[in-house]
Amino acid sequence: MNSSSDIQVHNPVHLALDAYKAAVHAKDVAAFAALYDTNVRVFDLWGTWRYEGLAAWREMAQGWFGSLGSERVVVEFDEVVATVTPELAVGHAFVTYRAVDSEGAELRALNNRLTLVLQRREGGWKIVHEHTSGPVDHETAKVMLKR
Amino acid sequence: MNSSSDIQVHNPVHLALDAYKAAVHAKDVAAFAALYDTNVRVFDLWGTWRYEGLAAWREMAQGWFGSLGSERVVVEFDEVVATVTPELAVGHAFVTYRAVDSEGAELRALNNRLTLVLQRREGGWKIVHEHTSGPVDHETAKVMLKR
Repeated sequence: MNSSSDIQVHNPVHLALDAYKAAVHAKDVAAFAALYDTNVRVFDLWGTWRYEGLAAWREMAQGWFGSLGSERVVVEFDEVVATVTPELAVGHAFVTYRAVDSEGAELRALNNRLTLVLQRREGGWKIVHEHTSGPVDHETAKVMLKR
Repeated sequence: MNSSSDIQVHNPVHLALDAYKAAVHAKDVAAFAALYDTNVRVFDLWGTWRYEGLAAWREMAQGWFGSLGSERVVVEFDEVVATVTPELAVGHAFVTYRAVDSEGAELRALNNRLTLVLQRREGGWKIVHEHTSGPVDHETAKVMLKR
């Protein structure tokens, strides 16, 4: 168990968000997958009710990064709330995903809401649950992706 | 701090889900609001990016229950995963909301994905964060509400 000041310095939520950002920008499937627990359950914004287990989630990342061509995705987190206890940590935040071209110019951007749950494992903290979404307009049933 | 067997018996995630179900069925705003922390942040499926604080969330419940007329909502949770530690607890599950008429006959039903985060407070466990959503179809940008 870490002391509380040690927990502050090595906040697993902020470390995970930074590593997520870096892995997505680098389109590095291995670095991305390393953030997650083998038994992760993800409720992702797009297309499917859940990803169950790391293999399915890694496949999603492979498809996502592979579809980008020469584009990159710059991720930004706002209003992060992190709660860290010795065994379990939770973070929630607003996310901006910005697609940029090979020169770094913005092509488009969208917002999500993100919840992350991490558990302390032998090899460090791992994401055991992730939930991303946008709010849905009641009239049209369409998702809103701009805050 | 509870012993681990005590935590099993009084699992705060399952208790919260049961109390949520009962409060919604009874359209009881006070019982519903009592489940949440003063500083709760909710990422709700419908219409708004976030509810910040209990007052805003209580108002949502008031509007929801008030709009039901003679209908009631029967809530059901499936595939609940609960992780409980001494100070922090997390649950995620699939939800079915069934609108029933005054005889109990089903009028319509929809599914959600739910994440709950609870913290132990003086007065017991309180929900500090809730996130509900449905996955979004990539082609139409419409939310899917049937599993």
